[in-house]
Amino acid sequence: MEDFKIQSVLLTGSDRGIGLGLVQQFLELLHPPQFLFATCRHPEGPEGQVLKEMAARCSKNARLVVLQLDVTDPHSITAAAKEVEEHLAGCGLNLLINNAGIAQETTLDSETAQSMAAVYATNTIGPMQVCQAFLPLLKRAAMKSNCPGMSCGKAAIVNMSSSYGSITALDEWQRHQDVSYRCSKAALNMLTRCQSLGYGTTGVLCVSLHPGGVKTHLGAEKGVLTVDSGTKKILDVLSSLSAKDNGTFVDWRGQRVPW
Amino acid sequence: MEDFKIQSVLLTGSDRGIGLGLVQQFLELLHPPQFLFATCRHPEGPEGQVLKEMAARCSKNARLVVLQLDVTDPHSITAAAKEVEEHLAGCGLNLLINNAGIAQETTLDSETAQSMAAVYATNTIGPMQVCQAFLPLLKRAAMKSNCPGMSCGKAAIVNMSSSYGSITALDEWQRHQDVSYRCSKAALNMLTRCQSLGYGTTGVLCVSLHPGGVKTHLGAEKGVLTVDSGTKKILDVLSSLSAKDNGTFVDWRGQRVPW
Repeated sequence: MEDFKIQSVLLTGSDRGIGLGLVQQFLELLHPPQFLFATCRHPEGPEGQVLKEMAARCSKNARLVVLQLDVTDPHSITAAAKEVEEHLAGCGLNLLINNAGIAQETTLDSETAQSMAAVYATNTIGPMQVCQAFLPLLKRAAMKSNCPGMSCGKAAIVNMSSSYGSITALDEWQRHQDVSYRCSKAALNMLTRCQSLGYGTTGVLCVSLHPGGVKTHLGAEKGVLTVDSGTKKILDVLSSLSAKDNGTFVDWRGQRVPW
Repeated sequence: MEDFKIQSVLLTGSDRGIGLGLVQQFLELLHPPQFLFATCRHPEGPEGQVLKEMAARCSKNARLVVLQLDVTDPHSITAAAKEVEEHLAGCGLNLLINNAGIAQETTLDSETAQSMAAVYATNTIGPMQVCQAFLPLLKRAAMKSNCPGMSCGKAAIVNMSSSYGSITALDEWQRHQDVSYRCSKAALNMLTRCQSLGYGTTGVLCVSLHPGGVKTHLGAEKGVLTVDSGTKKILDVLSSLSAKDNGTFVDWRGQRVPW
């Protein structure tokens, strides 16, 4: 990972959990990104403040830009894309990490239409709309790059999925049915596959990532990895992704997860 | 298929396309179901009239009951379940076919949040809620049956999916991107898998079915099979399903479709 060089990264849901951990890891790289856009729903809230304090401590070589972005609000997505474009001043965006997500602890019996719709809106429709909005900047990064092949350092979309969304594995069913969450992540995996075919020709790498059982607010008891160790491993994987991974589902160890 | 005996079947979206074709096929069985509940959104509309005329022509041994059921309306689902229970008078429901579905011709670029939400509501959330409502009747059928193992003649949920929803195959991508439809069917496949584990223990067989390219209103130009020949093949497959198929994705030839 020592030579993981990436000029610009945008993360959604970056004010806590894996998102915040990834921000930290990117800043600690030997060559941190020139622009790290850390977006969240409420930058003015207490969790947003943590990001702002981190931003204030950054050096000139690594700019942490905290932006408001609610993946369920198209206006907020468009406004964030406009701001990011202004910051980048003609450069493209190298890496978009669709990390924002929600989960509901439900069962087949207790699942509701409301929960199904809400989780799908954030976990599946949100990433789709965020990608649409940032695609011109991702394409620009791919076009302007001198690097051969595909990589996160060049132009990539990483959709944060989950092994819970593996239809084949149906990971941890006995402990957590979470039907709305599983359905939303299976659909997100489908979106990744569609994007890999639709955007892949323009040089944008598209991958679904299972971050492993990280101890976060979404399921602290499920975690076996701390946020720090888990996000370190995720950065390792991101740095290693190439064209052969386009349209696949990989985990925090870089291993393939079955659809 | 000659010995396909099934006492009661309920179909959603049965006033046209594959749904209407299946109604016809069930009525033409050597041993037609005692109760065939053909549900649709608008039984009073012109397409509902076709069903009503078919119902009027039925013999006493095979009752075709036309009911209003909109899979996106919980009240309509509950009301239909109550009516079906009254008709069955203590018996269970053997086979529930979640056939109602919609499609939008979209691309990665033209896809919208509205289309994503609407297609998911009908194709994924709908079947989930219909299954929740009819589960007691399906369980009753499983409990009261003397048949060993699992079968559609005993107790089963068949979710009408599509090879377009196969994340692995991404069938026909070059011709039809249809992202909202693909995502909804991948999520429906996840639902089938969840149901197969959650309901399977009570004896209810749960399967995703790809009906093949049938010439219907949802994509006439895509079809290679007529409604008549396509739905005949589907009934063949239904009659052959057993416990080994629980939680799988099969096509109109009985072959496995990859997730």
